[in-house]
Amino acid sequence: MARVYLLIKTESGMEEKVYQALKGLDYVSRVDIVTGPYDVIAIFEADSLSKIEDYILNKVRKSEGIRETTTLIALTA
Amino acid sequence: MARVYLLIKTESGMEEKVYQALKGLDYVSRVDIVTGPYDVIAIFEADSLSKIEDYILNKVRKSEGIRETTTLIALTA
Amino acid sequence: MARVYLLIKTESGMEEKVYQALKGLDYVSRVDIVTGPYDVIAIFEADSLSKIEDYILNKVRKSEGIRETTTLIALTA
Amino acid sequence: MARVYLLIKTESGMEEKVYQALKGLDYVSRVDIVTGPYDVIAIFEADSLSKIEDYILNKVRKSEGIRETTTLIALTA
Amino acid sequence: MARVYLLIKTESGMEEKVYQALKGLDYVSRVDIVTGPYDVIAIFEADSLSKIEDYILNKVRKSEGIRETTTLIALTA
Amino acid sequence: MARVYLLIKTESGMEEKVYQALKGLDYVSRVDIVTGPYDVIAIFEADSLSKIEDYILNKVRKSEGIRETTTLIALTA
Amino acid sequence: MARVYLLIKTESGMEEKVYQALKGLDYVSRVDIVTGPYDVIAIFEADSLSKIEDYILNKVRKSEGIRETTTLIALTA
Amino acid sequence: MARVYLLIKTESGMEEKVYQALKGLDYVSRVDIVTGPYDVIAIFEADSLSKIEDYILNKVRKSEGIRETTTLIALTA
Repeated sequence: MARVYLLIKTESGMEEKVYQALKGLDYVSRVDIVTGPYDVIAIFEADSLSKIEDYILNKVRKSEGIRETTTLIALTA
Repeated sequence: MARVYLLIKTESGMEEKVYQALKGLDYVSRVDIVTGPYDVIAIFEADSLSKIEDYILNKVRKSEGIRETTTLIALTA
Repeated sequence: MARVYLLIKTESGMEEKVYQALKGLDYVSRVDIVTGPYDVIAIFEADSLSKIEDYILNKVRKSEGIRETTTLIALTA
Repeated sequence: MARVYLLIKTESGMEEKVYQALKGLDYVSRVDIVTGPYDVIAIFEADSLSKIEDYILNKVRKSEGIRETTTLIALTA
Repeated sequence: MARVYLLIKTESGMEEKVYQALKGLDYVSRVDIVTGPYDVIAIFEADSLSKIEDYILNKVRKSEGIRETTTLIALTA
Repeated sequence: MARVYLLIKTESGMEEKVYQALKGLDYVSRVDIVTGPYDVIAIFEADSLSKIEDYILNKVRKSEGIRETTTLIALTA
Repeated sequence: MARVYLLIKTESGMEEKVYQALKGLDYVSRVDIVTGPYDVIAIFEADSLSKIEDYILNKVRKSEGIRETTTLIALTA
Repeated sequence: MARVYLLIKTESGMEEKVYQALKGLDYVSRVDIVTGPYDVIAIFEADSLSKIEDYILNKVRKSEGIRETTTLIALTA
């Protein structure tokens, strides 16, 4: 099993929109709007890391309102 | 009582505008244009944390000229 | 319900030790050693935010091997 | 009047100690332990900026438990 | 005498333009395009800090091509 | 021989486009889309550092989709 | 094939020592002391990502003089 | 002519000591204790970049009290 945490900075004021969009995506086991230096955190889980990486690159990062992402890959999934 | 410090990076040249807009908002006990890695700092105070969080999310972060925010929640308010 | 994500930078080489220590703590629903700019991520869940905050301040941050933490409080828990 | 916000990263587990030490210092109008990428925030106020700067440099930064500080000088004090 | 170092991130590809614009400004004793996490550094010198701060806020930060600035005020000018 | 590592943050969703564009450029010995706090990394090699620096400044940084770059110059090339 | 870029901040003055130690390690295809916000960069290559991750976690991060690391996993290896 | 700006984070409370030590070093045209996210900034000038880089690596970074440095090489020296 593979797990990836995606830390997202949104365009200002777009947190809710990004949050709703991510909730409906594949492999997403949890999404939260958060305080601190990031705006949204999403957790992706799938049976292979490359599935998640492709999906983030080709689908998630193209979602409206996302300005910057930092990817944390779980080594203990 | 709840207190939140909002560290704001504005669009370049928009410090004064953001500063003036924040001064007029609810729960805002102080605003300053600052030097350093941030442009404006605002202090919010209310009787509940969720009031402040909702207000920041749905009102403040939608103000014109705000590019990025970092939220610091006071644990000793 | 309250949820907090704790992004942890450990002393170099102490990831495994911090990971094992956090796994045994109260309110911890998940811990992972991760890649990227952080070393470990822990998710705390409890019926009140102040319980988690006190616990992080008085227990977690005093664990051996933790160098720096960034706290993300979920606004959509 | 001059005002300076000091964002402090403490040695892990030393937040309470730094918080208590700062509360007793000159020119300090407020101190809070906070969540997010910093651990403590202190607000200094005095009739001149150089008084505050000297004090931070020669007194505050030598307090036990302080690892890193970021100084924000208010331009609208 | 007051001295301020302004670390500037420009819009990508705008380094030369920002560099040329800053060279012609008041109080600027040196400007350089640089490598590393910033794109341009400018040093301002004047007989008072507030003159420089006002100028940066009302003139420099409104120059085209500037995305983000970090201000370092010299305590040993 | 001179070697420079260019750490690139792209506009969200533009990783593939930037990656393809950089692959075709002069002096580029390797390009990768990556996880973590950056999106793309490119390695430049040439017989002189100034050749690479000029090229990055006048060609690479003007490529579409590049938001921010951090330059690491190899001291052991 | 898997490739990982490791961005390393060393204890101050320990760059050369870390550089020499990393040069002799398994999977390391290149190491450089660099300028900018990091001190050393190392590139690891192996036939599987987990081999590299284990090695970084259990061997590299325990090397003397390493203070902080940021891992970038190549998605286009 | 080559010019390098060195942004320095010192051990907390060691600013004055680092400042005095750097003032006496070769190639140093200016040093300042500063506010903001760094503690000291030093400007090095010499007839070749490699002279400055060697000196920073083998002499400056081994000075007592220096925790972290970020090197900005001037492309317009």
